[in-house]
Amino acid sequence: MFDKAMAGKAAENLRLVREKRPLVHSITNDVVMNFTANALLASGASPVMAYAQEEVEEMVSLADALVLNIGTLTPARLDAMEKAGKKANALRIPVALDPVGAGATSLRTLSAKRLIQEILVRVIRGNASEILSLVDGGAGTKGVDSIHRVDQAVGAAAGLAKERGVTLAVTGKVDVVTEGIRMLRIYNGHPMMGYVTGAGCVATAMVATFLAVDSDPVEAAATALSYFGLAGEKAAQGAGGPGTFQFRLLDALYSISEDELRQGAKIEKVLL
Amino acid sequence: MFDKAMAGKAAENLRLVREKRPLVHSITNDVVMNFTANALLASGASPVMAYAQEEVEEMVSLADALVLNIGTLTPARLDAMEKAGKKANALRIPVALDPVGAGATSLRTLSAKRLIQEILVRVIRGNASEILSLVDGGAGTKGVDSIHRVDQAVGAAAGLAKERGVTLAVTGKVDVVTEGIRMLRIYNGHPMMGYVTGAGCVATAMVATFLAVDSDPVEAAATALSYFGLAGEKAAQGAGGPGTFQFRLLDALYSISEDELRQGAKIEKVLL
Amino acid sequence: MFDKAMAGKAAENLRLVREKRPLVHSITNDVVMNFTANALLASGASPVMAYAQEEVEEMVSLADALVLNIGTLTPARLDAMEKAGKKANALRIPVALDPVGAGATSLRTLSAKRLIQEILVRVIRGNASEILSLVDGGAGTKGVDSIHRVDQAVGAAAGLAKERGVTLAVTGKVDVVTEGIRMLRIYNGHPMMGYVTGAGCVATAMVATFLAVDSDPVEAAATALSYFGLAGEKAAQGAGGPGTFQFRLLDALYSISEDELRQGAKIEKVLL
Repeated sequence: MFDKAMAGKAAENLRLVREKRPLVHSITNDVVMNFTANALLASGASPVMAYAQEEVEEMVSLADALVLNIGTLTPARLDAMEKAGKKANALRIPVALDPVGAGATSLRTLSAKRLIQEILVRVIRGNASEILSLVDGGAGTKGVDSIHRVDQAVGAAAGLAKERGVTLAVTGKVDVVTEGIRMLRIYNGHPMMGYVTGAGCVATAMVATFLAVDSDPVEAAATALSYFGLAGEKAAQGAGGPGTFQFRLLDALYSISEDELRQGAKIEKVLL
Repeated sequence: MFDKAMAGKAAENLRLVREKRPLVHSITNDVVMNFTANALLASGASPVMAYAQEEVEEMVSLADALVLNIGTLTPARLDAMEKAGKKANALRIPVALDPVGAGATSLRTLSAKRLIQEILVRVIRGNASEILSLVDGGAGTKGVDSIHRVDQAVGAAAGLAKERGVTLAVTGKVDVVTEGIRMLRIYNGHPMMGYVTGAGCVATAMVATFLAVDSDPVEAAATALSYFGLAGEKAAQGAGGPGTFQFRLLDALYSISEDELRQGAKIEKVLL
Repeated sequence: MFDKAMAGKAAENLRLVREKRPLVHSITNDVVMNFTANALLASGASPVMAYAQEEVEEMVSLADALVLNIGTLTPARLDAMEKAGKKANALRIPVALDPVGAGATSLRTLSAKRLIQEILVRVIRGNASEILSLVDGGAGTKGVDSIHRVDQAVGAAAGLAKERGVTLAVTGKVDVVTEGIRMLRIYNGHPMMGYVTGAGCVATAMVATFLAVDSDPVEAAATALSYFGLAGEKAAQGAGGPGTFQFRLLDALYSISEDELRQGAKIEKVLL
């Protein structure tokens, strides 16, 4: 059965986001910048997208959370991420990492590993193939799409979580969040989310947003994914296809009430 | 009461845009490129988005107006803006500047000031915090969102306008346009515009579009903002949230008739 | 009359795309990345958008087709295209080129020519002005919009096709595809597509997608353009403007059945 306390936490986190309007600084890929910014606005957060090395430290100093996303990565963008991440660490601003396409190319895999090495990341959110590649570089992916199931990556996620002191969020049909001790499964979501580019990237941005109001990374990540998944469920009602779905998703992020989330959150505590 | 002559001018400018289909060259940020291009197309303009230093001078030479927007700024992008702006000046092509995030980081504040110094900008369009930061660098902003009200920036706008011979457009709940002598207030708009990333950037692109058909920068800016605000009002009717609103905004830019704009424009002349 | 065999081929190609879900690697411009990725997903393909020189060869090696698109071009992006294109050639992965804005600036015209020189491109898809500029650099365009009609570019297309052993797809009111021997005209499409930024870029991505499942470039290009044009026709039904149209276009790419395409394809064989 789904956990009522976690559903309540989800509603409370959403309330806090809308009250505090956290500034979420995203250094993300060129494909999803617009959609991510709109999703952050719809949720109640305030987005900023700066990535120039000349300003990322100053910008992140104003922020309540930082997103690092390695899609459309370049060496310059990577350096900016490292600078911003270190500054965030110094200021105790939470950092969420999205290792987009790790496993597909050496640049992605090595860059994700370098960021985890150099920066204290609070949550890593990826699909199963991406998470596996962080442990076993030879896992492989199909471009940016997973070729593994979430359950195949749970062991790797738990191991990496313990080794690095980071929370792992592996998303797919059912999402899993763990820091190696607790484990939560989130059953919210809809298959149509796989037809919207950047759905995973936005999930990571939502995790960062909830990290800005919740100091427990496992609960922040799980409640954020539940909220985002519920928005997907709501958006799918009557959607004629992925175009309509995409904009209903923004509408749903905006319109879901705390009560709706409390009722609709499907978070399960797993006994390890 | 709203000014009937200005409402007529708004309708006439819209007619000219749709007749002439001005080519608007935008050197803008990565977050809003797609949305800006679609908004320009919807209004009747023809957008082009080139930013390589190797081609900006050649591209702007074909254009009827130039937009410089410092969101997601890099030093290379700034150099391209300066090149394009100087070429535009030499060819008497009007330039609109959007100082996105000025006040948030030194890179943004100094770059905006450098562009105003080096280039003859016809209109600067920003929120209150951004405009204040151009006069007083220590004004501060929350990322790219304003923490000041428009009326707090009117004095700074009028001062900067006089000093630089530029028209200032400060947007917020009510927009103000001034070149230090005349002042217009525009009451069109809708709060939902704050939930669409790049709404301000698109406002600047609309100002540039109207500059292509109206040699009076105060009237061009005011009528463009009135048209854009009215599109927001129309888009908000029945919108279920910011996703739906965003695409109705494009529909509205496309479908607003000259008569609708003549009836709906809410521009007020302010006696100084 | 429209060719029934080609309509059948269109339906079969669509079936194959949805069955095989080809990975389409796009090195494309910043304006259309998101829309292109969403269109590829909607059609059934799997998109990846990497452009760093450090990873393009590795990424394209995983792909079933490669798109090179010179909008918002920079010298670094051009080098990445050349690297990726050569690797694709070595691995016999089909390449589609979109010479966005060729004719508008020397950078665009020369870069398009360099890519055709250095890389074995299977299909070039452009508007009439862009295609003309590849033969006659002085043709000129209005930014990225054509100032020529498709029929004005057919001769140039056929000549270039023969000279280079490439298939040319010239799109406009009626599209023409030729490799200098056969010629097909495609009558699908809707004027509203001219109000969506990146419609041409997405057309090229669709051509690349069909190249991944059809070894005949003339038929792949013609059937892809027919599918995309039919999606435009379907999207236009009841659309209130270009915003709504844009998202219905994604819905239509997703929802068009093989039967609908077999019935709706309007491809004509032209006797030369």
